[in-house]
Amino acid sequence: MKRIPLLLCSCALLSLTLPVLAADQDQDKDVVQFREAIMKTLNEQSAALGEIASGVIPDDNLVTHMDELALAASTALKAFTPKVPGGEAKPEVWAKWADFSKRMTDFAQQTAAGAKIAKEQGKDAALVQLINYADSCKGCHDQYRQEKKK
Amino acid sequence: MKRIPLLLCSCALLSLTLPVLAADQDQDKDVVQFREAIMKTLNEQSAALGEIASGVIPDDNLVTHMDELALAASTALKAFTPKVPGGEAKPEVWAKWADFSKRMTDFAQQTAAGAKIAKEQGKDAALVQLINYADSCKGCHDQYRQEKKK
Repeated sequence: MKRIPLLLCSCALLSLTLPVLAADQDQDKDVVQFREAIMKTLNEQSAALGEIASGVIPDDNLVTHMDELALAASTALKAFTPKVPGGEAKPEVWAKWADFSKRMTDFAQQTAAGAKIAKEQGKDAALVQLINYADSCKGCHDQYRQEKKK
Repeated sequence: MKRIPLLLCSCALLSLTLPVLAADQDQDKDVVQFREAIMKTLNEQSAALGEIASGVIPDDNLVTHMDELALAASTALKAFTPKVPGGEAKPEVWAKWADFSKRMTDFAQQTAAGAKIAKEQGKDAALVQLINYADSCKGCHDQYRQEKKK
């Protein structure tokens, strides 16, 4: 299949300014890379929220980080919809799609609710909701993720 | 300084459910980790947008990813405000703070404008804006980032 290669660099977007070359390449790598971008965003924003929750970073951007987490969560299920094993995803993601997709949908709803709670009720109430995320992250990772050695 | 240690795990938020231990630790590591979380989010969302722009991923979440990028950009300057060298940040970040902070502020404004353009004018107009980001990413990284070997 003809497609445009994605050339990564220190700023991934710089690829857009490079000449566009058509080449036969496997699209699977891009599908995996895309969903890893989503999952890494979830991880990084969770880490930022963890630092805010444990008090090492000021909480003045709490709502923004909750919004970022919710936005990333809202795109996560779609990133897994193409049935392309690889990365850290176990084949069970697609073998048990009904369960996986329900978990992802629930997670997106929880994070959206969390962002709302952070706005309306503040940090302490948001913290309670964050602990629920932690459980659902772990529950899903235990079943559907084969973590690779870094 | 007494503080709560951040315990990272496969889901960073799980740390919240672990027992809270007070310990004397240097806060600098957390400051660096926090800003790396922001910069990695920018990188991952840029990568996702790069894939959308090059056509390998459907564009139905374009606006969401533009929003995520803009939110992350809006928190980036604050993450660098504590003068804590380390990670990939060169000392020039703080030595030339007026320039650095202007670039970061401009970047936040550009990404916010980009998210608005994506909503109101669609993908092609957003793509033009994305190329501007790429330039400002690279310009700032060249001056202020010492990329480490992975």
